[in-house]
Amino acid sequence: MNSYVVGMDIGGTKLATVVADASGKILQKVRKATETEKGPEHAVQRLLEMVDETIRLAGLKREDISAIGVSCGGPLDTKTGVIYSPPNLPGWDSLPLKALMEAEFHIPTTIENDANAEALAEWRFGGGRGHNYVLYMTMSTGIGGGIIANGQIYHGANDSAGEVGHQILLPNGPLCRCGKHGCLEALCSGPAIARRAQEAIRKQPNTALLELTAGNIDCVKSEHVLEAVRNGDALAISIMQETAYYMGWGIANLVNILNPEIVLIGTIAIAAGDLLLDPIRQIVADMAMQRPAEVVKIMPAQLGEAVGDLAAIALVIDK
Amino acid sequence: MNSYVVGMDIGGTKLATVVADASGKILQKVRKATETEKGPEHAVQRLLEMVDETIRLAGLKREDISAIGVSCGGPLDTKTGVIYSPPNLPGWDSLPLKALMEAEFHIPTTIENDANAEALAEWRFGGGRGHNYVLYMTMSTGIGGGIIANGQIYHGANDSAGEVGHQILLPNGPLCRCGKHGCLEALCSGPAIARRAQEAIRKQPNTALLELTAGNIDCVKSEHVLEAVRNGDALAISIMQETAYYMGWGIANLVNILNPEIVLIGTIAIAAGDLLLDPIRQIVADMAMQRPAEVVKIMPAQLGEAVGDLAAIALVIDK
Repeated sequence: MNSYVVGMDIGGTKLATVVADASGKILQKVRKATETEKGPEHAVQRLLEMVDETIRLAGLKREDISAIGVSCGGPLDTKTGVIYSPPNLPGWDSLPLKALMEAEFHIPTTIENDANAEALAEWRFGGGRGHNYVLYMTMSTGIGGGIIANGQIYHGANDSAGEVGHQILLPNGPLCRCGKHGCLEALCSGPAIARRAQEAIRKQPNTALLELTAGNIDCVKSEHVLEAVRNGDALAISIMQETAYYMGWGIANLVNILNPEIVLIGTIAIAAGDLLLDPIRQIVADMAMQRPAEVVKIMPAQLGEAVGDLAAIALVIDK
Repeated sequence: MNSYVVGMDIGGTKLATVVADASGKILQKVRKATETEKGPEHAVQRLLEMVDETIRLAGLKREDISAIGVSCGGPLDTKTGVIYSPPNLPGWDSLPLKALMEAEFHIPTTIENDANAEALAEWRFGGGRGHNYVLYMTMSTGIGGGIIANGQIYHGANDSAGEVGHQILLPNGPLCRCGKHGCLEALCSGPAIARRAQEAIRKQPNTALLELTAGNIDCVKSEHVLEAVRNGDALAISIMQETAYYMGWGIANLVNILNPEIVLIGTIAIAAGDLLLDPIRQIVADMAMQRPAEVVKIMPAQLGEAVGDLAAIALVIDK
């Protein structure tokens, strides 16, 4: 009876391993710090131990596990299972994680970049259920994405599809982490919203936003903008409208290109809800073509903080 | 032995029917005018007659035909085979073309929008052979597109995916045929290139471009721009560079989103070749992310004027 699976969520600060049954129900979970400063060998060793620990805590044995799914920051190669220097995992250069896992456990291991795996989890367990074409977008420190078509991750030529946050809207706009200018991410990620808010406050300091950070402009974050919008602050509302405009523009382009049934947006969109999503929907209706626009729903992602564990599990359920 | 197929290419000015063998080799072809002013009933009746005529000219009978493929301007529904008012086919409103064909011929009929069908033809017979992820872009009166992933057309929720020409780059830019502003199509289609050239000439009439149209600014077309570029005309070169910039920007975004192995561009890119494609490649290398950019090839489409016939055939070969 090897009807259980292991999921592994590898982040820059946290590692998590879970054991789930064949339906995706999570039975046990172990979390540890990644401690990236100790290098990849340390983290990999820790992960190997965590897998055994999680299996043991679930009252199972290695032979009860049919597959291991790994959700990790990209770039990586899903065919070979090699990880290529993700920005949040310094030193993970050409790391053959799939081979290392399979050498240790002799269990088939599937490795996927985190945004794609999260998209699959939303399709399987969350807001994408029942839809053939799903576009999932992260919206937190960065803006990533995953495309699901007919229940499959759309990988692209070298597992790089879905970089929807690096769609360039303003080629002379703000510098993005990727080195280009004016990417959607450089306009609408959490840090980008904070930066736009801080710049606006410097020009117009008469705003309730500053009360939320004891007058410290540099401490203004996207969460404060959202709170100030709820309090009716004019400057915060204008920052939120500008965010909705850029997000709506970018999503309109994606709607024309990908024609999704549903666009699911994470973290910030979950926190903001219709306050952000309603103006985004309006912009998409204005800027996208009528036929794809009339079919698409734009919604907050549903899995919230559970998405990381379910992302790894979604890769190996029903396989 | 029903090992032959019929292809039907429906355009706003011309109708074509072809008969091909199981390998896609075209044996016979009939062409007639669409005469859209006479309405859809007239065109459909003409198509029905053309199918029989083409079969007869190929020395075959209806029972030799296993499938009919139809390439037609969208929007249309590939599942029901209903055509919804394509801009180039006035009056074709909710026309159940698949049902009409199948009622007459009792042969399974597949209907696809022309850009998607052409993309499939390029994948099967042309520049996309051997590639799993192909992005095909038309570049003539408009800019359309078709996405092929693992040998399948990426349709989207209601057959509207691949509208890559309506990616908005400049929301305050020139009006597009679709009613929005600053779409890639409104900047880089043939008419858009001509319009930008005409505007530039009005400001700076000292250009060899005008000699190509006997001094008539309104007659300047994209073909003249291309010819003047070949003659070294400075204004024409600047128009071409601007075209490459917008095309490169749009394609860079598509490369980040879709991660194709190859981008194949039709008509104008075929005529211009590396004169246009080299600067496009440079812009894509500058604006796209490194990993998807390093894998993508940007090439002229290969099927040229044969693409329409092969598009219809590609839908029903190996089916």
